Amino acid sequence: MRISQLSAASGVPIPTIKYYLREGLLPQGEQTAATRAEYGETHLRRLRLIRALLEVGRLPVASIGKIVAAVEDEETPVHQMLGTAHYALATPVEIDPDDTEQRAARERVDHLITGLGWNVAPEAPTRDELAQVLVRLDQLGMPATEESLRFYADLLMRLVAEHEMGKIPLNGPRETAVESLVVGTVLYGKVFDVIRRLAQESESARVLGA
Amino acid sequence: MRISQLSAASGVPIPTIKYYLREGLLPQGEQTAATRAEYGETHLRRLRLIRALLEVGRLPVASIGKIVAAVEDEETPVHQMLGTAHYALATPVEIDPDDTEQRAARERVDHLITGLGWNVAPEAPTRDELAQVLVRLDQLGMPATEESLRFYADLLMRLVAEHEMGKIPLNGPRETAVESLVVGTVLYGKVFDVIRRLAQESESARVLGA
Repeated sequence: MRISQLSAASGVPIPTIKYYLREGLLPQGEQTAATRAEYGETHLRRLRLIRALLEVGRLPVASIGKIVAAVEDEETPVHQMLGTAHYALATPVEIDPDDTEQRAARERVDHLITGLGWNVAPEAPTRDELAQVLVRLDQLGMPATEESLRFYADLLMRLVAEHEMGKIPLNGPRETAVESLVVGTVLYGKVFDVIRRLAQESESARVLGA
Repeated sequence: MRISQLSAASGVPIPTIKYYLREGLLPQGEQTAATRAEYGETHLRRLRLIRALLEVGRLPVASIGKIVAAVEDEETPVHQMLGTAHYALATPVEIDPDDTEQRAARERVDHLITGLGWNVAPEAPTRDELAQVLVRLDQLGMPATEESLRFYADLLMRLVAEHEMGKIPLNGPRETAVESLVVGTVLYGKVFDVIRRLAQESESARVLGA
């Protein structure tokens, strides 16, 4: 299809599509004439992925670029590709090792992960992300106890193991595996967050008798 | 304390504190001389809340302003105040009633909530938020089934009812109740999201044998 048709099918304006092409988020179409290129289903699918990550995940374009690069580099093994895509979803956070409070929080995170027996790389950005939230909770006088963190961890591991990982098609095309991981993480993360807020409203109405 | 001491105690630069004062996010200090004001524990606590919402919650300043206004207006009953604060946490989403796909998604959300017997206002912004994610999942060919949504809903309601709502001090000062709700929603929402991604990495390493 032509770029105008791709725009109509995806709902993404032509200048935006051209921007994604320039930034390398979208692969070039097949050149059929000097000023004409042909686009296919891959482009449409990729555009939908980009829009979902931007609008639902609110991911910066740079993070989307890293995910797309991991998909397109066929030399990267599947596990590593999934790791790259996964790490791109983390909010960049810097823990200052000279700050006693931050270092202590990071140690609590490491201790928690070791205690759970989870297999998480020492350089995983998620460790610092969790440490940052623990510092904030401490400062607000609402510290997270080890017990409550373990409760959440057990619940979420059951969810991930039983309901999420099994759905990632590891034997199909690379793009499908990453897409499934990213969509699962970001979009189902959002589903989770919104349903939790719906439950809070309902439970609040019940408790406060409104 | 003086503004310089408030800055040192909170780690927030003086110009930023002045900006929060101008925007009404932070109440004015007690004027002790023409160019001197005195700040107290309330200011320090409020500053920590603002920083947590900005840095961990990534909430826009306008949403934080709405939360602060609900706390400060003593005429608003507690349940309504909590509702206002809660709705300010939603990502604004517009569902187009002329778009068949979006309208169908919104109907699925309404049907789900009715089926669960949850007490959620018809105008709750969370309804459209969830509908938007369902549309994206459909477009990406990974639709959320009613069964999986119900599974998540049951799990999250148990969590909210047993582990979250009980912690909100409804009989104390207004600010403490809202703070507790907002911090619980945003910061524990983040704790949840990060622990889920840690579980995904660990489970992915186990399944892929890395």
